[in-house]
Amino acid sequence: MASLYRSSLRLRSVARLPAARALSTTAQLRAAEKPYFPDEPTAPTVATAIPGPKNKAAMAELDKVFDVRSLNMLTDYTKSIGNYIADLDGNVLLDVYAQIASIPVGYNNPHLLEVAKSPEMATSLINRPALGNFPSADWSHILKTGILKVAPKGLDQVFTAMAGSDANETAYKAAFMYYRQMQRGGPEKEFTEEELQTTMMNQSPGSPQLSILSFKSAFHGRLFGSLSTTRSKAIHKMDIPAFDWPQASFPSLKYPLEEHVQENAQEEQRCLQEVERLIKEFHNPVAAVVVEPIQSEGGDNHASPAFFQGLREITKRNNVLFIVDEVQTGVGATGKFWAHDHWNLQTPPDIVTFSKKAQTAGYYYGNPALRPNKPYRQFNTWMGDPARALIFRGIIEEIERLKLVENTAATGDYLYAGLERLAKQYPEHLQSLRGKGQGTFIAWDTPKRDEFLVKAKGVGVNIGGSGQSAVRLRPMLIFQKHHADILLESVEKIIKQL
Amino acid sequence: MASLYRSSLRLRSVARLPAARALSTTAQLRAAEKPYFPDEPTAPTVATAIPGPKNKAAMAELDKVFDVRSLNMLTDYTKSIGNYIADLDGNVLLDVYAQIASIPVGYNNPHLLEVAKSPEMATSLINRPALGNFPSADWSHILKTGILKVAPKGLDQVFTAMAGSDANETAYKAAFMYYRQMQRGGPEKEFTEEELQTTMMNQSPGSPQLSILSFKSAFHGRLFGSLSTTRSKAIHKMDIPAFDWPQASFPSLKYPLEEHVQENAQEEQRCLQEVERLIKEFHNPVAAVVVEPIQSEGGDNHASPAFFQGLREITKRNNVLFIVDEVQTGVGATGKFWAHDHWNLQTPPDIVTFSKKAQTAGYYYGNPALRPNKPYRQFNTWMGDPARALIFRGIIEEIERLKLVENTAATGDYLYAGLERLAKQYPEHLQSLRGKGQGTFIAWDTPKRDEFLVKAKGVGVNIGGSGQSAVRLRPMLIFQKHHADILLESVEKIIKQL
Repeated sequence: MASLYRSSLRLRSVARLPAARALSTTAQLRAAEKPYFPDEPTAPTVATAIPGPKNKAAMAELDKVFDVRSLNMLTDYTKSIGNYIADLDGNVLLDVYAQIASIPVGYNNPHLLEVAKSPEMATSLINRPALGNFPSADWSHILKTGILKVAPKGLDQVFTAMAGSDANETAYKAAFMYYRQMQRGGPEKEFTEEELQTTMMNQSPGSPQLSILSFKSAFHGRLFGSLSTTRSKAIHKMDIPAFDWPQASFPSLKYPLEEHVQENAQEEQRCLQEVERLIKEFHNPVAAVVVEPIQSEGGDNHASPAFFQGLREITKRNNVLFIVDEVQTGVGATGKFWAHDHWNLQTPPDIVTFSKKAQTAGYYYGNPALRPNKPYRQFNTWMGDPARALIFRGIIEEIERLKLVENTAATGDYLYAGLERLAKQYPEHLQSLRGKGQGTFIAWDTPKRDEFLVKAKGVGVNIGGSGQSAVRLRPMLIFQKHHADILLESVEKIIKQL
Repeated sequence: MASLYRSSLRLRSVARLPAARALSTTAQLRAAEKPYFPDEPTAPTVATAIPGPKNKAAMAELDKVFDVRSLNMLTDYTKSIGNYIADLDGNVLLDVYAQIASIPVGYNNPHLLEVAKSPEMATSLINRPALGNFPSADWSHILKTGILKVAPKGLDQVFTAMAGSDANETAYKAAFMYYRQMQRGGPEKEFTEEELQTTMMNQSPGSPQLSILSFKSAFHGRLFGSLSTTRSKAIHKMDIPAFDWPQASFPSLKYPLEEHVQENAQEEQRCLQEVERLIKEFHNPVAAVVVEPIQSEGGDNHASPAFFQGLREITKRNNVLFIVDEVQTGVGATGKFWAHDHWNLQTPPDIVTFSKKAQTAGYYYGNPALRPNKPYRQFNTWMGDPARALIFRGIIEEIERLKLVENTAATGDYLYAGLERLAKQYPEHLQSLRGKGQGTFIAWDTPKRDEFLVKAKGVGVNIGGSGQSAVRLRPMLIFQKHHADILLESVEKIIKQL
């Protein structure tokens, strides 16, 4: 019954939608496409209204002990597979949200299952080390064959963390320590008595009034330091004390980028000038600039390689660190392993932070002076989780084996082309399409965004938004052209319902 | 050879040490004691100087990519068992530091191994959910049979986190939101336009200049908010911007507590008055007071139940929240499941944070008003890790099965009595012994503390310090009287070498 339903849903879509028919020029190619998950459904199943009755009952039960107001759906992970997420009521949706952009190689990926069942994993789970004090004998090997195997060019060292927020915050801490070390005149300079005393009172000079410069609409996390650099939405920040740190304008570009080259370049220039002015003039000296390659939570805002090259130059010229937050963009989603690989920088960023699709977190760096001058300055009990580091290694193996970065680049181009066609057909519903050449990291604006996202579930797609009015696509790296076809058909169906 | 060495080491110690002989009155009891880990070594093995040659070589290799200056020893977790930690050179030490107080039920605990190998664990590892959006269908069940099964009295809800720092910081965020909600006059009151605008600029009133009051010598973590409440050591805080938040004196008590009742009560009264004065007068209004039941990193500083009862009264009277940080004291180490169970409070703390021996983290609360008034205000992508929540559930099962809290209370009393005898014999080396009736959460001051800790390894014991001059004991919950005997013998051996 369920499979009959799936077939008819699929056939009906294809029969109905002109955009989908237009895509059939690539039908042969798609037919030849080898699926990464042979057991994956061939189409979504929508069995009930979403949330269905079982979901609602389970939500009410969970609500007694755990805040469920942000809950999307209670998930049956045992039935989720590849790109498809299953709920309690028998609904199986094509998932292009992927746990807020954090699932890289598919639900119940067989290789990750092997990793999860390995003796190494078991010992990591039950003998969790304080990594700074008692790392396992093979920690160096795990790093080199995993996290560091994919280290950004020029950055060969890592500090491991738990999630995006503390990855960024420990990076900021490294930047502040480095900045003060430069001011003191080197790592061998001792702290003064005044510094030692004032820091215990949270006062300058020991706890200096330095700052991190971030951009308007940026998102870098939700703890106190990272939240002070987050500027995406008031609801994230309201009522929480924040540091007096500066924000610069992020370029507000017109899309498609290739049709607005000159005015976009001017806008980027304006923003770069603002950055440099803030670095020179802001009352709390700037130790580092932090930026996302594509502002993600803030609405999928892009900028050109020239903009980021400019940031690199300005930070270098002014002796402040350049931190690239690749928490959402990293690990293949933009069609390169790191989004900043698109920029062709002359010198690498000073620090690159990662999390989400890595399933663990931390920051990469290259300059040895970014190790604080004394031990225990950058330290905490767990400093990450070796169990999750093993999962990241498995993810890297899977990405390499299946060439998933290349897949994402190619699928992204295919998907983008399909969306371009839809944008021409439905210009009022598909505005400012963006992410060309950026893998599947694609978004557009639509006036009835929230309604769009709700209706998406009704046609079998789990999809997220960003900013105020953007639909953002964050499929996994195993998202293929035949999935793109289903997504394109679904987008058109949703538009027709609006 | 190794086992011969172990036997001779053991025999030699027993033969040599008067304190150990003094303990032989309990020999019969110990002989009858059933070991939790039958395969555990019966004594430490010291095979080389520590660090040995293999350790040194591996450290040099790791140092190329990972800061190793805080490294204690590279550990062979496959050979560590129960209370014993093994290094690369064949040294097997009795571990009373336990990964900075975070291993609860022994290395390679067989029950945890079962949990690690379960299908539930595999799916949690490879399908990591965004818990606020897509929790697994059994998340409610996992919480109720795990984390919430041991919830402190009166606190029946949980927000899950990753480690101690973000557990505390999210608790602080909850406190700030609650405080402002009270000021506004209730959860239904909307934010003003001014608040919405100012918070985007990190300015008041949207980002208000509120504070968390903590205590001198406190340790609550190392991220920006938690670090602003940490007051243990300058090296933790130096160069990192901090919030202008108040610190009160923590009672500086004289030990043994029962011999200085009156002057200690006066000292506690002085500190309580300071707390209340700061709440009333500090220029950045206090939203919450955070306190450790026993200041751990800060030097194992104790206070009486009366002091904490006083704190509860003061915070209640002044409408500020009372947050108890049980990151290090929680999960059985003090001979009760939560250290604040020792206080017999009339009303429970508003928030209790946990991590370390829980192997996961978060905060408990009871008052529904501590759920922020809108969704997504307390939120992040992962919100903890279900894999680690399963491990905590396994730990709870093991604690219940083996009655490990009771064991820790009894072993603690036994160990404390032995240390009291040693303190009488070596008063210059064993000062201010503290932790009576607090399970194995025992410490003392010694003038040559750092030398003591180094020499401990030479006699086969891995042991840590806290504060400037304290030796702190943080054995696991499976630490038994026969382990206490070895520890007591070792302490005496070390003292004789100083």
